[in-house]
Amino acid sequence: MPIVHIDVLDGRTVEEKREMVKQVTDAIVNSLNVPPDAVTVIINDMPHHNFAKAGVLRSDRK
Amino acid sequence: MPIVHIDVLDGRTVEEKREMVKQVTDAIVNSLNVPPDAVTVIINDMPHHNFAKAGVLRSDRK
Amino acid sequence: MPIVHIDVLDGRTVEEKREMVKQVTDAIVNSLNVPPDAVTVIINDMPHHNFAKAGVLRSDRK
Amino acid sequence: MPIVHIDVLDGRTVEEKREMVKQVTDAIVNSLNVPPDAVTVIINDMPHHNFAKAGVLRSDRK
Amino acid sequence: MPIVHIDVLDGRTVEEKREMVKQVTDAIVNSLNVPPDAVTVIINDMPHHNFAKAGVLRSDRK
Amino acid sequence: MPIVHIDVLDGRTVEEKREMVKQVTDAIVNSLNVPPDAVTVIINDMPHHNFAKAGVLRSDRK
Repeated sequence: MPIVHIDVLDGRTVEEKREMVKQVTDAIVNSLNVPPDAVTVIINDMPHHNFAKAGVLRSDRK
Repeated sequence: MPIVHIDVLDGRTVEEKREMVKQVTDAIVNSLNVPPDAVTVIINDMPHHNFAKAGVLRSDRK
Repeated sequence: MPIVHIDVLDGRTVEEKREMVKQVTDAIVNSLNVPPDAVTVIINDMPHHNFAKAGVLRSDRK
Repeated sequence: MPIVHIDVLDGRTVEEKREMVKQVTDAIVNSLNVPPDAVTVIINDMPHHNFAKAGVLRSDRK
Repeated sequence: MPIVHIDVLDGRTVEEKREMVKQVTDAIVNSLNVPPDAVTVIINDMPHHNFAKAGVLRSDRK
Repeated sequence: MPIVHIDVLDGRTVEEKREMVKQVTDAIVNSLNVPPDAVTVIINDMPHHNFAKAGVLRSDRK
């Protein structure tokens, strides 16, 4: 049943996402002792002008 | 006041979304006894490479 | 695959939630033509001091 | 540590977002007494056909 | 229409939240030029054992 | 920068969560090649009457 939402900055390749969801699912399966089928992962790609830290858009950071 | 977020896989038409928000709003109105105006629905389209079940991206499923 | 998150104010009974998830699931099934098994609903109860409109906490509204 | 997610309708410029994250971060810093570095803001742009009020898509509103 | 979700660690008082939603709403109103009525804020209190940075629960940090 | 939200059903112990955030953070670090410090994890505990599959609350499942 665990549902995992992951916010990442734009630019991740499908290969990176493929590896990430595999490893994150394994992490949930191992730590919570649930079957892999029970794990859902949703990725949200954030444009660099849609993410800010300390009040500064990532796209504005030098 | 209910706020409804719905994650769906990419590919839904505006017609399907129009029908979905109408029916989901009716469902909330009927079950919680709130006015339609109080119901907000937000749809999030997920690319098939941004959704995984059992550690496998939907875009990789045969 | 649709995943539905519903934010509601504290105070809803289990009976209301039972009816809401049944009706919302039917709405998704009918409008998107997916099997009921594919629909997940998550409810988030908000205390009245954790919700604001127009800058005023619901718990402060007369 | 506060993490702020803001859903806005499509059409906001980078200038508006730059100003928004600056002012929202200041608001969190001032009201919760945390350092600016502790504040993360994520913006989610919603297409007008992905937002509904009272069961009507924003893109259908006259 | 902007909907703002704010995740904060457990322990904030209602007074702090009251001030936070007031200031955050003002920040949105000023930067996006929307009426106050259009701004919804939802606060999510996180127990210290439900938040982690660098793989360490906040409740485990010395 | 990745921010991970994990919805789990009520009942997980702090030991399970401690292990989960450690392993999930490692999974993100390894697959995306980011420093551990960049990874934030937020856990959301769902009461069994706040989660439904196929229109049935988990608390109603025999």
